Amino acid sequence: MEQDGVARRIIAAIKEQIHSGAYRPGDRLPSTRAFAAEWGASRTTVTAAYNQLDAEGYLIIRHGTRAVVAPGLERKSGEAPVATISPRNLSAFAQRLLTLPPTALAQPARIADFRYGDLSGADFPVLAWRRASNKAILRRPARLRYGDPQGSSVLRNALQAYLWRARGISCAPDQIVIVNGSQQGLDLCARLLLDPGDPFVIENPGYLLARHAFVAVGGIALPVSVDTDGLRTDQLPPARLAYVTPSHQFPLGGVLSATRRRSLLAWATGVGAYVVEDDYDGEYRHDISPIPPLQALDADSVIYVGTLSKTLSPTLRLGYLVVPAGLRRAFSEAKRLTDRHAPMLEQDVLADLLASGAYERHVRSIRRKSAERRGILLQALTDHLGHRVTIAGAETGLHVVAWMNGIAAAREPTLIAAARAAGIGLYPVSPLYDPGGPRPKTAGFILGYAGLDADALRRGVAVLATILTEHR
Amino acid sequence: MEQDGVARRIIAAIKEQIHSGAYRPGDRLPSTRAFAAEWGASRTTVTAAYNQLDAEGYLIIRHGTRAVVAPGLERKSGEAPVATISPRNLSAFAQRLLTLPPTALAQPARIADFRYGDLSGADFPVLAWRRASNKAILRRPARLRYGDPQGSSVLRNALQAYLWRARGISCAPDQIVIVNGSQQGLDLCARLLLDPGDPFVIENPGYLLARHAFVAVGGIALPVSVDTDGLRTDQLPPARLAYVTPSHQFPLGGVLSATRRRSLLAWATGVGAYVVEDDYDGEYRHDISPIPPLQALDADSVIYVGTLSKTLSPTLRLGYLVVPAGLRRAFSEAKRLTDRHAPMLEQDVLADLLASGAYERHVRSIRRKSAERRGILLQALTDHLGHRVTIAGAETGLHVVAWMNGIAAAREPTLIAAARAAGIGLYPVSPLYDPGGPRPKTAGFILGYAGLDADALRRGVAVLATILTEHR
Repeated sequence: MEQDGVARRIIAAIKEQIHSGAYRPGDRLPSTRAFAAEWGASRTTVTAAYNQLDAEGYLIIRHGTRAVVAPGLERKSGEAPVATISPRNLSAFAQRLLTLPPTALAQPARIADFRYGDLSGADFPVLAWRRASNKAILRRPARLRYGDPQGSSVLRNALQAYLWRARGISCAPDQIVIVNGSQQGLDLCARLLLDPGDPFVIENPGYLLARHAFVAVGGIALPVSVDTDGLRTDQLPPARLAYVTPSHQFPLGGVLSATRRRSLLAWATGVGAYVVEDDYDGEYRHDISPIPPLQALDADSVIYVGTLSKTLSPTLRLGYLVVPAGLRRAFSEAKRLTDRHAPMLEQDVLADLLASGAYERHVRSIRRKSAERRGILLQALTDHLGHRVTIAGAETGLHVVAWMNGIAAAREPTLIAAARAAGIGLYPVSPLYDPGGPRPKTAGFILGYAGLDADALRRGVAVLATILTEHR
Repeated sequence: MEQDGVARRIIAAIKEQIHSGAYRPGDRLPSTRAFAAEWGASRTTVTAAYNQLDAEGYLIIRHGTRAVVAPGLERKSGEAPVATISPRNLSAFAQRLLTLPPTALAQPARIADFRYGDLSGADFPVLAWRRASNKAILRRPARLRYGDPQGSSVLRNALQAYLWRARGISCAPDQIVIVNGSQQGLDLCARLLLDPGDPFVIENPGYLLARHAFVAVGGIALPVSVDTDGLRTDQLPPARLAYVTPSHQFPLGGVLSATRRRSLLAWATGVGAYVVEDDYDGEYRHDISPIPPLQALDADSVIYVGTLSKTLSPTLRLGYLVVPAGLRRAFSEAKRLTDRHAPMLEQDVLADLLASGAYERHVRSIRRKSAERRGILLQALTDHLGHRVTIAGAETGLHVVAWMNGIAAAREPTLIAAARAAGIGLYPVSPLYDPGGPRPKTAGFILGYAGLDADALRRGVAVLATILTEHR
């Protein structure tokens, strides 16, 4: 009877695999011996199950060969692959999460995709990475064991030195937490610093995934507008936390002035808030001198968020936090409970690149390339669009914002669809504004240029100009 | 005046770097040109700052060479490196987190460290990993961009096939979520399925970091005892979620019987709970036939948690979930907001190893090695300790529990300290019991053997026997 039960389960499982498309017609099944070993069943049982499936027309068994899936059993398209049931009770976090607007993962547009955040694969330092990676794999320790939740001490020492050289940040390696990309850094800030109902300040317009991270834990967004000097610190309401992008306001590109930096930090001390400083593209400056990060002005109020997504690759998922000494233990314990620590191999590779100077050579090289791309993009915009477009935020970073003078914001969806049809990926500014407040009247797009070569940039702008002319 | 401000900031920053030990006596500073470029300051300002530091005795400047840090400026040991301030308001999550017992990260013991979870570095498939890794690095796409939060579809397809072959799990690739190790999977379950005050069932004794993940989000632990058949399902109270290790109860090693599997799932349907099935060492069976996972019996109630930490390395941080179809969107959105997605390179490498068969060859090889280690450990325990020890949970997995007959649990700390002094790492069972309930009267230790070779296992048990004799 137990035997029959196992056979029935084998039969059901194989049928399901065929129906789900995991096994396709003509695919060979494992030998009865291998199958029996994996399932802990006897070969007799497996043979019986196979024979039953042969009799039912699912399998074809010829003497001396392995069973194959019979033809004509493909899943019909349109048939639901799995039954969906409504989930049992979800947490308040999950319910908030499911009301946030989902992000589509479209394929890159054919001619030029201006999606911000993409980098060019050709810019990745393949040889240096591979060399360091092979070294790190061979250097594996005698014992493979969980590491420090804040990350490898070798990497944190190297980062400490780098942050001081490159950004004037002075911190102890103990204040650094290696995270899986800056998004995890933001999520940790959200979880550790906000309770449901707590107000947080966010730039308006601002970075959507930061806003979502804080809203998902129950934070109440207090949007504060920005201008060419960054966040309007004269409008700061009391809050538990402020999220800012002072070196290059995302998306509009303002650089937070020295005066405003001081008043933001005075506000934080006054209301007892922490400031989350997202230095997402701090390595890229074109026309301006670097301004010291907020962290360098007040290491007790500021959580500094850094990323490798803009210099190496967004697919690596490597970032870091510099946290006030008083928050170190909370971040360390949270990181441990969240996922133990960041993957060690990538940490070893990055530490090697930082120590050998290869990382900074790469940054200089990619900074030069970005400056070239930016020059080409700005020139093309001038050539093809002239006064029909107003550019903001070009001084630093890897994107500009282009306002389409004389074109109403309501036309954005039409323009985006027309652009997509012509092979151009366009991304509007408007969704980055607070959903409850006023939005710009003029159509505006974020043009990310880090993933595009000269030809794509020029062709992209040329096509964009044609579309604008058609839709004027 | 602005100039002076910059010089002052440079002076203060260099001093801090010297005091913190980042710059050590004899270290060369960057050239004034390089320094000026990074700080966006003039060379005159940097030269003035360097000269001031020379005058104050921090630097030594000789004409024509780069400035070096003066000797005698090392940080005195015992001096606090950073001032600690008490944190501003932390969230309830952070406060719960900080009351959890911290985990120490001790160095491995000299002769034999029985810490569970460690693997031997010699077992890692270096060549296969390096080959697949080099292929993946070279195959980088034209555009580097954020991927699917659930993970690469190539990897999920490969895992679907593997899970069916190896564990009899039948699921759609869409139900799989690649996570940064199983700990992230548990944390996602905690956040999505529990609100503060919600009760959850946990095995007693049980896995501490699972319990902590659920407690940190505010869950109320309802400990349910275990015996040789795993969780006592006759004692299940109503709850929102149950965390179980049915294929090898951690730490005591019971295998959840078929009858109890059915009653656990009936309970889940009855009270509207989800079951989190942690199959942490499912690849390792020694004396018993595999039992189908709970997931295979009820795909709508069970969240299956798998890991690569026990077959490849805990330092990789790779794991996966199989979630009910109805929960897919919540997990996908949560993963995106948490850290976008798992690192792509590791995913590509793992997909390659799964597709080429290298992963399963490796699992067979390491399973054989584990069986050998287990045999050596059990033999050594019999030889050296005989009836003085009772072994539990040796049928599967990578650890056994050894109860020290006739030695009171209160003596555990003494034994652990004596063992550590003799070069042996010992880890007690008692902290894994519910802190509010009764604990075992006999001293018991978890002996993990995956990180130890034959010699270390034999010597470790021999030393342990000596210590037990001395402390009897």
